[in-house]
Amino acid sequence: MISQRFDEKNIFVIPGFHGVHEALIQGQPRIMELWLSEGKKPERVRKILALAGDQGVPVSFKKGTVFSHLLPDTAHQGIVALVEEFHYSDLEQVIKVSLKNDDRAILLVLDHITDEGNLGALIRTAAFFGVHGLIIPKDRSAGVTVAVLKRASGAWLHIPVVRVVNLGRTLDLLEKRGFWIIGASGETTDSIFQFDWNRNLALVLGNEQKGLSRSVKQCCHQEVSIPAQGNVESLNVGVAGGVILSEIIRHRNIV
Amino acid sequence: MISQRFDEKNIFVIPGFHGVHEALIQGQPRIMELWLSEGKKPERVRKILALAGDQGVPVSFKKGTVFSHLLPDTAHQGIVALVEEFHYSDLEQVIKVSLKNDDRAILLVLDHITDEGNLGALIRTAAFFGVHGLIIPKDRSAGVTVAVLKRASGAWLHIPVVRVVNLGRTLDLLEKRGFWIIGASGETTDSIFQFDWNRNLALVLGNEQKGLSRSVKQCCHQEVSIPAQGNVESLNVGVAGGVILSEIIRHRNIV
Repeated sequence: MISQRFDEKNIFVIPGFHGVHEALIQGQPRIMELWLSEGKKPERVRKILALAGDQGVPVSFKKGTVFSHLLPDTAHQGIVALVEEFHYSDLEQVIKVSLKNDDRAILLVLDHITDEGNLGALIRTAAFFGVHGLIIPKDRSAGVTVAVLKRASGAWLHIPVVRVVNLGRTLDLLEKRGFWIIGASGETTDSIFQFDWNRNLALVLGNEQKGLSRSVKQCCHQEVSIPAQGNVESLNVGVAGGVILSEIIRHRNIV
Repeated sequence: MISQRFDEKNIFVIPGFHGVHEALIQGQPRIMELWLSEGKKPERVRKILALAGDQGVPVSFKKGTVFSHLLPDTAHQGIVALVEEFHYSDLEQVIKVSLKNDDRAILLVLDHITDEGNLGALIRTAAFFGVHGLIIPKDRSAGVTVAVLKRASGAWLHIPVVRVVNLGRTLDLLEKRGFWIIGASGETTDSIFQFDWNRNLALVLGNEQKGLSRSVKQCCHQEVSIPAQGNVESLNVGVAGGVILSEIIRHRNIV
């Protein structure tokens, strides 16, 4: 699923059957209005109209040219949902659900990731590996924009994203709730393959250039690194996140 | 290190001390000309001048404004190397070196990756995990452009990239030389965690949308997938490559 900025207003668009259907089923993001192309109504359109009716979502019928004019490069299939700005989740709620889920919660914390492509890729990767929530800081960090949602390929519907004012305070809170704060860092020789991941985790990834910030490092119980084999010292942060999350899941499934 | 297109000509630029130094040491890519900013010459500039002298690389001194005009957004540090187009490596040579290296060669084969960001990220990831060579097809594939080199963050100096006309024939040749052809695919339940990676390998990653092509699948001894934990079906191909290469290295180090 792709989303795109619509006009100049701060409205997000979910184009196509699959994305609109999923948003209606999940109730998130809240749909302000549904636009349908005039003309014949196949079965799946009728299903979506029924769902929209149940949920009181207003439906407008538009000429096909309206779609092609406003969404020239989008495979909209003659159906789009107009949605409000991205809905961030509540930290307490995410902690609660992650701890209830099983006794091996996993949250991903991004310490000032600034590249929108990286944030989008990490949302997709986190959702793939069943991470219970993503935490990002409000300032000096990429937020969830249309470009980010596009890179996340619809995965943002499956993972709550929390935005916090102070990352240090958030990590303190997570520690109090029984989470182990583990930082990914190129500066340690402690390998991700020699760590016991079988505990409630908050995995922290650092900024693309600077890595983990000092205040965040102070909150970490442990720093771990991905062992390099070649002459190149670092991985892209999105790739590093995937490698570590994959190892966490592998490890948990064998112990 | 970053490289950038220079003017309209097909000239690549390596800006900054580190990148220029590395290219001089490695002799690759071949430097056509070295540009230095006029003014004081610290020790590290003198070292580079000595290296350039040894290798017969012409040096020009330019005004600082020339740099800021031609490379407005680049941290060039007053030194750039002008290099020719990207140099692809010879397949036979790469096979030979990979098999000599140890008896567990690993090549990464990209089955029509079209996104330049993905290709660049995969070059960096492959170099990080010590892959012996990267093989891409000539047609319907991203080639090594300036944007790709930029995303690869200098890693392209550490891994040979081979461009072939026919991927199927190349995989046949690799099989004859004793490589196992292993395809990454979302369509199998055979997990990357249940495969014995301890053999000479050609790991094949498929196109962003279509996955592995039919002709490539026919060449594969085995297809493997990364087990998903969440509701999202697929990973970005660059992330998937990192996850699988990491598992290969982990597995090889314990057997």
